Amino acid sequence: MIKVGIVGGTGYTGVELLRLLAMHPAVELTAITSRKEDGLPVADMYPSLRGRVNLTFSSPDKAKLTECDVVFFATPHGVAMAQAQELLAAGVKVIDLAADFRMKDVAQFEKWYGIPHTCPDVLTEAVYGLPELNRDAIKTARVIGNPGCYPTTMQLGFYPLLKAGIVDATDLIADCKSGVSGAGRKAEIGILFSEASDTFKAYGVSGHRHTPETIEQLQRMTAQKVGLLFTPHLVPMIRGMHSTLYARLNTDISNDELQALFENAYKDEPFVDVMPFGSHPETRSTRASNMLRLALHRPNNGKTVIVLVVQDNLVKGASGQAVQCMNLMFGLDEVAGLQHIPVLP
Amino acid sequence: MIKVGIVGGTGYTGVELLRLLAMHPAVELTAITSRKEDGLPVADMYPSLRGRVNLTFSSPDKAKLTECDVVFFATPHGVAMAQAQELLAAGVKVIDLAADFRMKDVAQFEKWYGIPHTCPDVLTEAVYGLPELNRDAIKTARVIGNPGCYPTTMQLGFYPLLKAGIVDATDLIADCKSGVSGAGRKAEIGILFSEASDTFKAYGVSGHRHTPETIEQLQRMTAQKVGLLFTPHLVPMIRGMHSTLYARLNTDISNDELQALFENAYKDEPFVDVMPFGSHPETRSTRASNMLRLALHRPNNGKTVIVLVVQDNLVKGASGQAVQCMNLMFGLDEVAGLQHIPVLP
Amino acid sequence: MIKVGIVGGTGYTGVELLRLLAMHPAVELTAITSRKEDGLPVADMYPSLRGRVNLTFSSPDKAKLTECDVVFFATPHGVAMAQAQELLAAGVKVIDLAADFRMKDVAQFEKWYGIPHTCPDVLTEAVYGLPELNRDAIKTARVIGNPGCYPTTMQLGFYPLLKAGIVDATDLIADCKSGVSGAGRKAEIGILFSEASDTFKAYGVSGHRHTPETIEQLQRMTAQKVGLLFTPHLVPMIRGMHSTLYARLNTDISNDELQALFENAYKDEPFVDVMPFGSHPETRSTRASNMLRLALHRPNNGKTVIVLVVQDNLVKGASGQAVQCMNLMFGLDEVAGLQHIPVLP
Amino acid sequence: MIKVGIVGGTGYTGVELLRLLAMHPAVELTAITSRKEDGLPVADMYPSLRGRVNLTFSSPDKAKLTECDVVFFATPHGVAMAQAQELLAAGVKVIDLAADFRMKDVAQFEKWYGIPHTCPDVLTEAVYGLPELNRDAIKTARVIGNPGCYPTTMQLGFYPLLKAGIVDATDLIADCKSGVSGAGRKAEIGILFSEASDTFKAYGVSGHRHTPETIEQLQRMTAQKVGLLFTPHLVPMIRGMHSTLYARLNTDISNDELQALFENAYKDEPFVDVMPFGSHPETRSTRASNMLRLALHRPNNGKTVIVLVVQDNLVKGASGQAVQCMNLMFGLDEVAGLQHIPVLP
Repeated sequence: MIKVGIVGGTGYTGVELLRLLAMHPAVELTAITSRKEDGLPVADMYPSLRGRVNLTFSSPDKAKLTECDVVFFATPHGVAMAQAQELLAAGVKVIDLAADFRMKDVAQFEKWYGIPHTCPDVLTEAVYGLPELNRDAIKTARVIGNPGCYPTTMQLGFYPLLKAGIVDATDLIADCKSGVSGAGRKAEIGILFSEASDTFKAYGVSGHRHTPETIEQLQRMTAQKVGLLFTPHLVPMIRGMHSTLYARLNTDISNDELQALFENAYKDEPFVDVMPFGSHPETRSTRASNMLRLALHRPNNGKTVIVLVVQDNLVKGASGQAVQCMNLMFGLDEVAGLQHIPVLP
Repeated sequence: MIKVGIVGGTGYTGVELLRLLAMHPAVELTAITSRKEDGLPVADMYPSLRGRVNLTFSSPDKAKLTECDVVFFATPHGVAMAQAQELLAAGVKVIDLAADFRMKDVAQFEKWYGIPHTCPDVLTEAVYGLPELNRDAIKTARVIGNPGCYPTTMQLGFYPLLKAGIVDATDLIADCKSGVSGAGRKAEIGILFSEASDTFKAYGVSGHRHTPETIEQLQRMTAQKVGLLFTPHLVPMIRGMHSTLYARLNTDISNDELQALFENAYKDEPFVDVMPFGSHPETRSTRASNMLRLALHRPNNGKTVIVLVVQDNLVKGASGQAVQCMNLMFGLDEVAGLQHIPVLP
Repeated sequence: MIKVGIVGGTGYTGVELLRLLAMHPAVELTAITSRKEDGLPVADMYPSLRGRVNLTFSSPDKAKLTECDVVFFATPHGVAMAQAQELLAAGVKVIDLAADFRMKDVAQFEKWYGIPHTCPDVLTEAVYGLPELNRDAIKTARVIGNPGCYPTTMQLGFYPLLKAGIVDATDLIADCKSGVSGAGRKAEIGILFSEASDTFKAYGVSGHRHTPETIEQLQRMTAQKVGLLFTPHLVPMIRGMHSTLYARLNTDISNDELQALFENAYKDEPFVDVMPFGSHPETRSTRASNMLRLALHRPNNGKTVIVLVVQDNLVKGASGQAVQCMNLMFGLDEVAGLQHIPVLP
Repeated sequence: MIKVGIVGGTGYTGVELLRLLAMHPAVELTAITSRKEDGLPVADMYPSLRGRVNLTFSSPDKAKLTECDVVFFATPHGVAMAQAQELLAAGVKVIDLAADFRMKDVAQFEKWYGIPHTCPDVLTEAVYGLPELNRDAIKTARVIGNPGCYPTTMQLGFYPLLKAGIVDATDLIADCKSGVSGAGRKAEIGILFSEASDTFKAYGVSGHRHTPETIEQLQRMTAQKVGLLFTPHLVPMIRGMHSTLYARLNTDISNDELQALFENAYKDEPFVDVMPFGSHPETRSTRASNMLRLALHRPNNGKTVIVLVVQDNLVKGASGQAVQCMNLMFGLDEVAGLQHIPVLP
C-alpha cells in the first residue's frame, strides 16, 4: 500500500482527492494537514466521508509527511515550493495541484502569480503531469506539476491539430466555460449562490494565467510558435468544464481524415473519448469521473475546425489527473481507482 | 457472475441501475429492453456509459430475459405484473422498482394507481425490499417490491420511535422534499428546467400514493394503527430527498435515550448513518451513494421529536436499494458494488 | 417627492430597496451610506442599476440623513437602534429591516440576538410593520420594525385560523423553506454556489429567532397562548419562500367555511392572494413582486389544516413590505411603486 | 389605448408579452388565442398573472383579432404568415416573434425552417424589428419580423465594427450562450430540469438558422460580404444570453478609439448600455428588463477585438423588443412600459 499525505485538504481538490483515494485499492491515507482545522476529523467537515475516512486534520508541523510515499499539495500557489525540497530529501514524491511546478519559465510564473519562485532547482526537475502527452517522463518523476483545469482541455483538444501541422498555430481561440467549483472553496462574494446562479459571465478576458501555461506546453510538445486567445466564462453549475476550441486549417483535409487524426492520437488512452464527428458532448457525461470527451465540427466544411472538449474540472481537471500521475509514478495500473462511471443525471 | 436483465432501461432508475451494475464485481449485464429504442446502443442514449456498457436496447420479445438470473423492472407501474409469472416460472428472480409488488392491499393499490392488479398470486409471495427492516425475508425471496423513495425515508425515520412505542402513532407528520429526478424522465411541461428551477412548491398535498404504502409497512412492522400526514414538495435539484418527520412523544425520555434508540436500531446497518443529535444532514452528503443519513432534534426539549432524513432518491431511494436486495437474494456481500463515496461538491 | 435615505445599501435588501424605490413615482433617492464603499457609485457595485440610480455610497458621517423624510436601515441587527433617536429628533421617520424594533420583549431580543438593546424608548413606540394585521398603527408610526421574512408567512397563514379560534393554538407547526438570498450577501462558505446548489438541508431546527417574533405577534393579535414549532430549510434557489403550515382543528368546520374564512380575512388586501382550495402555489408566482399567495388543504378531511404560503423573501418578506409601510406612513396609495407583475419564468 | 391581441400566448414569449403589456400604460389587452386552451383563464395557466390579467384563452376562430390595433404572434414558425394578410386587410398591424418575416431571402428561409413560405407579398413589405439599426422603417411598418434572440446580440455587437470597416467581415466568430427558456415551453426530454441543469453543452454547431438571419442583416446594413461562425450553447439558467464575439482588426486603432466607436454608435439608445472598456457584463444585470449591455476587450492589445454582449433572451431578445417596435409603430414613447429595472439578485 502506498502511504499518501495531503497538504491542505479543506478545499474542493482536497476533498475530491480524499474521495478518490479512499476508494483506491492501493492507497493508505496517512496524513492530512490544515493549520486552521488542526484536530478536526475530516468527516466532520465533509459528512460525505463519514465512515469512510477516519483521518483528522493536523497542523503541518505535527503531520508526519516525511513518512509518506507521496504527498499531494491541494493548496494555494506557493505552498508546495516551500516544502518540496524537504520532502524530496526524505525520499517522498511530490504532486502539486497548484501552479508552483507547472511552468518552466520562472519569469512568466512570477508575472502571472505575483510571487517569487523560491524553488527553481526543483522546478527544473519537475515534470508536467499530463499523462496523455507526457507519460514517460511522469513515470520516473519525483515531483509533478499537475496541469490546470483549462489547460488540460486546451492541450488535449489542440494537440493533434498542432502536431499534424495542419492549422495556423498562431491563431488559436479557446472559448472556455467552467463550473463554479473551479473557483475553489473560498469565502468570496462573487461565488455566492445568489451571485453565481441563474446568470452567466466571462472573466479574466483581458488576460488569464492559464494562457502562458498552455502556450508553453503546446510549444514544447509541437515545436512551433503558438498564439492563443483564451476566454474563460463562469457557468452556474458545480462541476464541469466545456472548451470550445477554434483553429484555422492551413491545408486541404477531409473530415474523415480529421476524425482519424484524433482517433489515432487517443486510441490507447483510457481517459480520452473521441466521440463521433459532429457530436455535442455534455459536461455531465463526465461528472465525477476522470473521463475527458471531445468531438469535432467543421461548419460548412470551411477552414475552421471546432473542437468541443468536456471534463469534470475537479477530476480530470485536477484531482483525478493527479491520481493518474501517482499511478504512473508508482508503477500501478494507470486506471487504478479511477474507473468510476460518470454520475448522470 | 450473476446474469442481469433490465426491462425499461431508458428512465432515471434504469440508467442508475446500469451505472451501479456496470461497476458491480459479481454482475454480468446481459439484456436490456426498450420497445421504443430497439436497436439503439445504450451508450448512444447515455454517453456517460460510453466504453463501459456495450449493451443494445432490444424489444421485449427479442430479449432473452429468461436466460437471466434476475430481472429488474425499471418501468411504469403495471409492467412487472404482466411479465413476472413467466420469468418466475423460468427460474428468474424479479425485482420491481415500480409499485406492482409493494402493497399487499390490492384494493388500495387499485385505488391509488388506477389499474387493476392482474397478478395477485405473485403479489402474495412478493417481499417488500427494505433490507433494514425486512432482511431475512428478502434473502429467500423470488420477487421483490422495491420501496418507493419517500417511503424509505419515512419508514427508516419513524421505525425506531414506533417500535419503542414512545410516540403517538396516529399523529405522524412527514414534510418531504424531493429532487426533480424523482418525477422521472418524461416529456412533461411541469418538470422542464424553466418550470422547475429557481422555484419551490408542494404537490399532491391532498393525497399521495406513497402514504398508504408507508402506513401499510409501518403497521405491519410495528403492529399498531398508524396515522400519517405526508406532504411532498419539489426541490430545484436533480437528486436528493430530505424528509422532515414530526412525531409526538407519549412518554418521558431523555435526548440521550432517544439518540441511543436510533443508534442501536441501526448500529449494524452499512447504509444507515445516525448522525450526532442536533445535526443537519444535507442531501448532497449522500449524492450518488447508497447511504441514508438521519439526525434527531427536539426543540425546547418539548414533546415533539423531529427526525431529519436524507438520501439520494435514485440510489437508496430506488436503484441502489434494488441492488442491495439483489445482493441479499444471491448470497453476496450486502455492500457489494454499493460502496461508492458520495460525490461532494 | 419623499426624500429617502438608505443606511447600508450593499446587501440584498438594500439593492432590492434601490430597485423598488428607483421606480417609485413619489420617491427621490437622496442618500445611501456604506462605510466600506464610501465614494463608490452604487451602479458600479450593481450594474443592474446603471443609468437608473446615480447615487454614490457615502460614509455614514457624511451622508445627510437628517435631511431625508424617511430612512431605511438595511443593516445588520443593532445598527438602527444606535441611530434612530437622532433621526427621529430631526423629524425623520425610520424603517428598520433588521430586528431592532420587531420584538417588544427586550429580554427575548437580547437572548436571541446576543446584543443588548440600547434603545428601549424607541422600541416602546415602534410599530410592527405588517400592514395586513397592523395597518392603522403603521399609518401614524414614526418608527417601524419591519417583519422578518419567515414571520410574515407564518403570521398571515395562521392568523385567520387563530383569530377564529378554531385550531389548537399551542400546537402549530411551520415547516418553512427559503431561497439562499435570505441568508444575505455575506462572504460565508456555507452559502457558496458549490455548497448550496443541488442540495437541500434544514438549519436552526433546535431554535431560531424568528420563532419568538412570530409567537409574540400572534399572541398579541389573537390574545391566546401560542405554541409554535418552526423548522427552516435552505432551498437551492435565489429568491422565494414557501411555508407549509400545520394546525389542528378543534371544531367541526367544512372546507368551504375554511376557505371563506381566509377569503374574507384578506378580501381587501392588495398583496395577499387566497388561491382556490387545494391549490399548490409556487414561489416563482411571486418572484420579484410584493404578492403573497396562500392555499388551503385538508387531507382526508381530517383534523389537520395545511396552509401553503409563498412570497418573495426579498420583497413581501423584506424590502417590498418596507415600502408598503412607507406608503402608509406618508399617506400615499398603499400599492404605489409595488405593482410589478411577478417574473415568470 | 391600443387594443392588443396575442396569438399563441401559452409559451414563454407569450407570457412575457402578457407581463409587459399588462403593465404598459397605453395598452388594452383585448384578445389572446390558443386552440388547445380555449376557455381557460390565462391566470389559471400562469398564476403570476392572477389579479392582473383577466383574459381567457379563446380559439383562433372566436377571437376578435380584427378588432385589435395590433396582433403579436408568439407562435411556432409558419403561423403568422397564414394569418397576416387577413389582419392587414382589416387594418391591424402585425408583429411576428417567430421567423416568418425575418429573412428576405425566401430560399434561405425555406432551407432552414423546412416549410414553404406562403406569404411572400407580406414578406416583401415586412420590416426587420431591430430598432437600434432600423428605427425609421419600423415607425411606418405594418408588419414586423421581430429578430431572433441570438441575432440581436450578434448584430448590435458586430455592427459598429463592420460599419466602421475596421475588421475582417468575412471572419467573424460568435460563441453564444443562452438560458434554457430560449428553447421554449415544449414537452421535450432534452430541456427537462434533470437533463439541463448542472451541465453545459453546445448544440447546432454544424449549422443553425440564426446564422443566415444575422448574415443577411449585417450585409444589408453594412454593405459588405459577411462570413460568420456561430456556435450556440445551452446554459443552466432560465433567462439570459451571453454572446462572446471575436473580430479581427484590419487597421491600427487604439482602444480608446474602439470604445468611442461603440459609445457614439449607441449614445442615444435607451436600451443599449456600453460599459467601460474591459468590463465583464453578467446576464443577470439585464434580467427581466429590456436592456442589452456590452463591453469591449482586446487581449494583449492584439489584432482581435472581443465584444461581450448580454441581454435577457425573453425581453430584448424577444417580447420586450416586440413591444419596443409597437411603441415606435404607434408613435408612443419608445421606452413606454419597458423601464423595469433588472431583477438582481
